[in-house]
Amino acid sequence: MSNKRGGILERLDNGEVVIGDGGFVFALEKRGYVKAGPWTPEAVVEYPEAVKQLHREFLRAGSDVMQAFTYYASEDKLSNRGNTAQEKYGCTAINTAACRIAREVAQEGDALFLGGVCQTPTYLSGGDKASIQAIFRGQMQTFKAEGADLVLCEYFEHVEEAEWAIEVGLETGLPVACTMCIGPQGDMHGNSAGDCAVRMARAGAKLVGVNCHFDPFVTLEAIKLMKAGLERENLKAYLMCQPVAYMTPDAEKQGCIDLPEFPLAMESRLCTRWDMHRFARAAYDLGVRYIGGCCGFEAYHIRAIAEELAAERGRFPAGSEKHIAWGGGMKMSTKPWIRARSGRDYWENLNPASGRPYSAAMSRPDNWGVTRGSEMLVQHAHETTEEEDNRVKQLGQQMRKK
Amino acid sequence: MSNKRGGILERLDNGEVVIGDGGFVFALEKRGYVKAGPWTPEAVVEYPEAVKQLHREFLRAGSDVMQAFTYYASEDKLSNRGNTAQEKYGCTAINTAACRIAREVAQEGDALFLGGVCQTPTYLSGGDKASIQAIFRGQMQTFKAEGADLVLCEYFEHVEEAEWAIEVGLETGLPVACTMCIGPQGDMHGNSAGDCAVRMARAGAKLVGVNCHFDPFVTLEAIKLMKAGLERENLKAYLMCQPVAYMTPDAEKQGCIDLPEFPLAMESRLCTRWDMHRFARAAYDLGVRYIGGCCGFEAYHIRAIAEELAAERGRFPAGSEKHIAWGGGMKMSTKPWIRARSGRDYWENLNPASGRPYSAAMSRPDNWGVTRGSEMLVQHAHETTEEEDNRVKQLGQQMRKK
Amino acid sequence: MSNKRGGILERLDNGEVVIGDGGFVFALEKRGYVKAGPWTPEAVVEYPEAVKQLHREFLRAGSDVMQAFTYYASEDKLSNRGNTAQEKYGCTAINTAACRIAREVAQEGDALFLGGVCQTPTYLSGGDKASIQAIFRGQMQTFKAEGADLVLCEYFEHVEEAEWAIEVGLETGLPVACTMCIGPQGDMHGNSAGDCAVRMARAGAKLVGVNCHFDPFVTLEAIKLMKAGLERENLKAYLMCQPVAYMTPDAEKQGCIDLPEFPLAMESRLCTRWDMHRFARAAYDLGVRYIGGCCGFEAYHIRAIAEELAAERGRFPAGSEKHIAWGGGMKMSTKPWIRARSGRDYWENLNPASGRPYSAAMSRPDNWGVTRGSEMLVQHAHETTEEEDNRVKQLGQQMRKK
Amino acid sequence: MSNKRGGILERLDNGEVVIGDGGFVFALEKRGYVKAGPWTPEAVVEYPEAVKQLHREFLRAGSDVMQAFTYYASEDKLSNRGNTAQEKYGCTAINTAACRIAREVAQEGDALFLGGVCQTPTYLSGGDKASIQAIFRGQMQTFKAEGADLVLCEYFEHVEEAEWAIEVGLETGLPVACTMCIGPQGDMHGNSAGDCAVRMARAGAKLVGVNCHFDPFVTLEAIKLMKAGLERENLKAYLMCQPVAYMTPDAEKQGCIDLPEFPLAMESRLCTRWDMHRFARAAYDLGVRYIGGCCGFEAYHIRAIAEELAAERGRFPAGSEKHIAWGGGMKMSTKPWIRARSGRDYWENLNPASGRPYSAAMSRPDNWGVTRGSEMLVQHAHETTEEEDNRVKQLGQQMRKK
Repeated sequence: MSNKRGGILERLDNGEVVIGDGGFVFALEKRGYVKAGPWTPEAVVEYPEAVKQLHREFLRAGSDVMQAFTYYASEDKLSNRGNTAQEKYGCTAINTAACRIAREVAQEGDALFLGGVCQTPTYLSGGDKASIQAIFRGQMQTFKAEGADLVLCEYFEHVEEAEWAIEVGLETGLPVACTMCIGPQGDMHGNSAGDCAVRMARAGAKLVGVNCHFDPFVTLEAIKLMKAGLERENLKAYLMCQPVAYMTPDAEKQGCIDLPEFPLAMESRLCTRWDMHRFARAAYDLGVRYIGGCCGFEAYHIRAIAEELAAERGRFPAGSEKHIAWGGGMKMSTKPWIRARSGRDYWENLNPASGRPYSAAMSRPDNWGVTRGSEMLVQHAHETTEEEDNRVKQLGQQMRKK
Repeated sequence: MSNKRGGILERLDNGEVVIGDGGFVFALEKRGYVKAGPWTPEAVVEYPEAVKQLHREFLRAGSDVMQAFTYYASEDKLSNRGNTAQEKYGCTAINTAACRIAREVAQEGDALFLGGVCQTPTYLSGGDKASIQAIFRGQMQTFKAEGADLVLCEYFEHVEEAEWAIEVGLETGLPVACTMCIGPQGDMHGNSAGDCAVRMARAGAKLVGVNCHFDPFVTLEAIKLMKAGLERENLKAYLMCQPVAYMTPDAEKQGCIDLPEFPLAMESRLCTRWDMHRFARAAYDLGVRYIGGCCGFEAYHIRAIAEELAAERGRFPAGSEKHIAWGGGMKMSTKPWIRARSGRDYWENLNPASGRPYSAAMSRPDNWGVTRGSEMLVQHAHETTEEEDNRVKQLGQQMRKK
Repeated sequence: MSNKRGGILERLDNGEVVIGDGGFVFALEKRGYVKAGPWTPEAVVEYPEAVKQLHREFLRAGSDVMQAFTYYASEDKLSNRGNTAQEKYGCTAINTAACRIAREVAQEGDALFLGGVCQTPTYLSGGDKASIQAIFRGQMQTFKAEGADLVLCEYFEHVEEAEWAIEVGLETGLPVACTMCIGPQGDMHGNSAGDCAVRMARAGAKLVGVNCHFDPFVTLEAIKLMKAGLERENLKAYLMCQPVAYMTPDAEKQGCIDLPEFPLAMESRLCTRWDMHRFARAAYDLGVRYIGGCCGFEAYHIRAIAEELAAERGRFPAGSEKHIAWGGGMKMSTKPWIRARSGRDYWENLNPASGRPYSAAMSRPDNWGVTRGSEMLVQHAHETTEEEDNRVKQLGQQMRKK
Repeated sequence: MSNKRGGILERLDNGEVVIGDGGFVFALEKRGYVKAGPWTPEAVVEYPEAVKQLHREFLRAGSDVMQAFTYYASEDKLSNRGNTAQEKYGCTAINTAACRIAREVAQEGDALFLGGVCQTPTYLSGGDKASIQAIFRGQMQTFKAEGADLVLCEYFEHVEEAEWAIEVGLETGLPVACTMCIGPQGDMHGNSAGDCAVRMARAGAKLVGVNCHFDPFVTLEAIKLMKAGLERENLKAYLMCQPVAYMTPDAEKQGCIDLPEFPLAMESRLCTRWDMHRFARAAYDLGVRYIGGCCGFEAYHIRAIAEELAAERGRFPAGSEKHIAWGGGMKMSTKPWIRARSGRDYWENLNPASGRPYSAAMSRPDNWGVTRGSEMLVQHAHETTEEEDNRVKQLGQQMRKK
């Protein structure tokens, strides 16, 4: 470990607040390098400079850990429903390229880098433990070989699969972190958030928590339950939190993916930097010590976390060179009424309008309640057929009528 | 001119629809390379790779013109209210670097590149025509020297200053385009949108229109009035439209900069790609032939324009490699209810919720009504003083009470 | 004229502000005595005590004029589309009963009473002037015979029919007032609001203005245009304004009847008493001297007008016995946080929430654009047939798709 | 008991759904006969015809029980904070007059009548059980003497006071019903909704449930908890539900009185008749057999309940003479697009817009958390002093800042 501040556990044990990065699939989709729908990361091979640039933005914003862009880089996902990335590049090449990019940028700063695995189509399709662990093992071996500082098991909707991933992660000898994409209602098998935390910690994860699917504030409600679960069982694990940067007060059990706006019309739910100040403070006060983001989080959101916690961390991020905290830059505007908008009091108390008088504040989530075991979740390599397409659309109309 | 499709006028004369790019200051501020408040583009010198990457995203999304990042790169702005960019780098170096980056990326595709000038602090401070034109001339000479395909005079709130800029632009011998940041209520001196178009065309601009300050749909209302003005006077000029990507139905005369959310809490107003489909179609139907974006426009917004007009343009953008039109990629989702969200019918009819039940749909704009001639608009090189700061804040509170 | 303060013109000539009453059809529909759809006033015969009670509430709230409940009491409307009121009671009996109730209550205070006519189904069906005037004449003769202090021609969407009504009104020798249900976009034949005012005044109306279809603030925009029209032609007429008590910023040419919530789900648009304070002040400042209400206005809305203008009128209404201005009664609450809600500053600055996070702020109006001359507006005595019903519903679905 | 359908328990035991009435204080305040703030019912002496008319509207709408207007008619409330009603009329005269009016109207139909007591200022001030029961006893004796069919203890925020009221009610020998103004979070002393139900039933109430403070749907959540509490303890009591007619998704523990709009700007939260159809169905399905309303409920809301349950009750209310279910009357409109709005499909699926684009969907409740025992809740006979007034206003500003 060549980092000045040490490995992840050393940093945490020293009482540091570790800042994560933001969301790669959403940011790179908007920039044109990731396809919405499959969301697989073959861009690391195809457009490495674009991926590297995004890492650099997060590093500059204050991220302490570069998360290699290995999301959904499992061989079953890379060949699911017509995806050709497995065939073209292969799982190992993608995971390797992702690690190298992350490592390179990490070394430009004093950052760590991690490799991550997540929920597999095979699990949703009802695959057995051995075959699923084999998938994870392939990726994990790459992470280890490329020198990752830790491994992350993330975005699990069922704690069972998370446990399987942690088991494989431990084989690497690296510290293992694990976050599930659940909210206060718990996982899709009916396990409470508290029980999920307990099971992740018992399985060997040193950091446990939540990523994706819910907004920062709903996510912290789930983390509260996790913390209580760990305390109840006298388990020690660091808390980790990487929510989406979209407001989801109307999401229910399965989070933002159930909202009708997901994923291609989420804009009006996007969090401001001021929301992130509030989030960072609340997460810190709750005891979360790995604070980052997921879908929707861009560099300026991460920078807001780093600025909010600058006193606790003893430093501002490099990117604050171009950002005066709490809108102080407004004093340099040519327009006097905009100069009047500098300062915390102004931005902290603003309730931003939507500009959409024909839209509501909330949507009814889809709530199909379909999970592992459902025939509709069985995945396949060929493209979605027209018959399948018609069937889900009819079902969608029926569900919305209810 | 080495471009296969010819220069800007050749393309337009051939009936092509030219697609512009998106907003650099907002995108790069979020990425960490531009400071909100002064909004000056010294990043072209400091972080050229980051600027280049953004150009590449727009090129890939379908932009036909790379707009060199010279916004606010006038010497008076680079040294205004404590800005040190003029002192550190100088105006010429910045304009030169911006042109070279834009040119390099343009040549990677079949794109043109332009250099632009905009509203000066000197004008707002009441400076005379000669001194203002001298500022423009400095920038324009750089554009010419670096081989720009056209020059753009943009973001003017007073048609008088726009005319002065056009005059200088014509000295280069290059085609001159001119867009003002006005809405249907016209410019800050009380000139109607129609009259502004007439004056820009008479001054020699071959393309006239609107950029910034208003959302796509309000902007098109202004363009309609400009078109009527030109027709009334039998003037021929191509129409150009580069609005912000934020919904501003509540903006009044001075547009989105008067809205209380501007500039650091505009997120919930952000347009979706589907809004841009509607915009592109409406702009095309109105006869606009240079369609691009300003603040808030990211690559995926530009790609949406290019996809909407793919039939008219005879091609999809390179970036559509990673985007199946109208959410077709959803068919590759592992979740059946998300697969049900593919297709135009779904996305076109969605009214996206804000996720913010404690926020309103609209805000009251500040509407200070301060413009050229006001003592509060007189700019200076030193930082805004504490006394000035207190004064504008008090004024702000009074104005909001009304 | 036995009233202490004289007839309507005497009062107005003396500089008084005359306060009208509120909406009978909406209030009595909610109380159970008027049928939504036909909206005819046979309750004056069937439930005279209920009608009288409503008059008394308005009188107590400050109304200076009791408006006999003769709305839609024309023989063609009383027998339209299955309505049996004409057959059961007859037009004359209804108009007579309405006048007597209004007169009785008016005499309990120092109020005047008026009889009113409004838009006829015969006009919409394309009937000729003579037959339409014959309908008005029948009603007007009853008003005259029952001792009305003035006649009102109201709720006209076409100024032509308004003129015909005024002509007949003048035959009574009583002062004639005339209000159209139009907004700033003018009447359904394309006459501007200003021209409508001019034509009403030239036809002989001493008071002209607007009632129904738009909220107080949109209505005042139309009144402004009317005032300008009268001034342009050097015509003198008092301005009269009786808007609906529902917020309609999204209404277009034909007003609130085009909004999808009309008439049975308008609740969330209902104005507060504080809206009426603002309305009364703005109307007064504009020079309106007959200020009342239409659909949705209840006694407390009228009382708010009377309280706002108490200084100008030299008196508070009787009903202020039970109302301390600007929420002063809150000081008598048992709960301290409610006691904190007394006073103008609190209520004037409150933006009331809707409590409906799944609803938008605005709706798209139907805008069928159907008016006099359309075959779909031809009325008949028999009930709407199933075939007609199906046809309009299909058409409705088509229009909403657009 | 001369009623054809028997007393309240006979009806309920026979499986009938009993429909209550709506809210007197809010309706009569708007009509001009009750003062907002103290909300005491001396109108029964001052304006008996106005009170009688409101009873008749509810009777006609389908109410089976006339609730004598005795709300807050306790001697301590009638003389609280400057209220002179006790001095002028006295508690007994007011309770007697209220009973006589209710009885008279009940006899016009086949309705029952009840007298009710509610939360006392003395309890909030910390008074002892004996003095509070003495207050209830005075009122109850009047109800008994005037021939009430049952007594109701309602609007209690603390189950302790509810029990004390029930005890006194049982002394009359009449059936006792008891409803608290609580939501799913339980009473102000921290008792759960389920425990409150158990304690009310154990104290002897034959009907238990909730009235006021929450909207129909939140209220049913509390009733669900009450039902579960009763089942857990094997207690039998009929469920009773009389919510406010205002949407309160944002209310917290103390309900709508904490919302900043309460009580003088609640308009935009008002429920439609279609909301009441949904409420009636959901309440019936949950097993509630006494379904009525509180503040905001007008006759047409009660009629909607009676129409929704017409099949179960075997009859439509008298008032349906003037109301064709599900907007059927629209078929009689002269306008075709309004005729297209008849039928359940249209109204049931409408999300009504607020017409207020500058307002949010939700508000932050005051949540002072002040309850019995707080010095600020100590009541007194003299008017609120200026010093007290200033103190609560300062406190209000502080609380809102948080």
